[in-house]
Amino acid sequence: MSKKQANTSEKLLEFGVRLMSQEGLSGVTLGRLAQHAGISKSGVFAHFSSKADVEIALLDHVAKFSAPRVLDPTFREPPGLPRVHAIVRNWFGWAGRAGLPGGCPIAAAMFELDDVESPVRDKVVEMEEQWRGVLETIVSEAVQLGELRADLDVEQFVWELCGIYLSHHVSSRFNRHPKADERAQVAVNALLARALP
Amino acid sequence: MSKKQANTSEKLLEFGVRLMSQEGLSGVTLGRLAQHAGISKSGVFAHFSSKADVEIALLDHVAKFSAPRVLDPTFREPPGLPRVHAIVRNWFGWAGRAGLPGGCPIAAAMFELDDVESPVRDKVVEMEEQWRGVLETIVSEAVQLGELRADLDVEQFVWELCGIYLSHHVSSRFNRHPKADERAQVAVNALLARALP
Repeated sequence: MSKKQANTSEKLLEFGVRLMSQEGLSGVTLGRLAQHAGISKSGVFAHFSSKADVEIALLDHVAKFSAPRVLDPTFREPPGLPRVHAIVRNWFGWAGRAGLPGGCPIAAAMFELDDVESPVRDKVVEMEEQWRGVLETIVSEAVQLGELRADLDVEQFVWELCGIYLSHHVSSRFNRHPKADERAQVAVNALLARALP
Repeated sequence: MSKKQANTSEKLLEFGVRLMSQEGLSGVTLGRLAQHAGISKSGVFAHFSSKADVEIALLDHVAKFSAPRVLDPTFREPPGLPRVHAIVRNWFGWAGRAGLPGGCPIAAAMFELDDVESPVRDKVVEMEEQWRGVLETIVSEAVQLGELRADLDVEQFVWELCGIYLSHHVSSRFNRHPKADERAQVAVNALLARALP
């Protein structure tokens, strides 16, 4: 790939992630991507082999884009409760802090693609599982250190934490409620209180 | 409106709600509605004045369609904890039990329309507020009867309950997890345990 081609690819992905964050995967059309990058619609296919290929590349780009903002600062904290608090702090509301014009593209995709079979759905399932795995690792570290109960159901804890994340997403982005952060913090504190030894 | 026209309207709405439950509002195109009803695309405009008008009619139809399945059986239970348990039982997973091929169209719309200004978004905001109001009424009844704490933060309780609903939606429809119902029940029980007097 030439340098110019690589620049165009990067531009397509950056614009696509912004669009996806506002309008979901269905809002990302080849025509709009092409127009933004100043190339023809068929020119987009010099970079991606199909619409599904574009969408999967965008999802990968979200992961690449969010890692230095969410995962990296979290794993700089010591394992145990400090890291549990850090993941909540860095994850909740990350899309806005990262300068995206809309919400978390993965959260939206879980509702957009729940009932449609496609390689894109499979990709989101895989990403969601990986993410759940990261959360389970962080919570398990706190269990191993004796900071959370030894008999804690870690999967249940993460299941409930994901619910708080989704309610916070709706509350802050859809309802635009001024107390979204506060409500989420109360819920996380209660979840943690039940998990203490 | 003639009887034939009314039948076509009804057919358009029923098919549209099924489509919306699977693919979201963006999946409901005038072309697909027209094709299903066996009329021309311009014929759809004999029934609705714009694409937004169709979407708002579909959202109203969801409310009409869900009421006898979710609200009516809940309000047949006595107020207080029995009614709180009934709303959880009737609400969680209602779309599947109602025979819709996909998930809850309102839950999906909250992620689809969070960052887009439109009369359709306003409609979903209004419906979500009404729904939250119903939940708050049911929880407040249990407080007034002394079955839940007098100082309970009812808005916070409902905020967290909505999070459990969303996590259950993702878990059952997106992850297709066999334990979705069980996980939701554990979370609801914990929320109730914190709210007891």
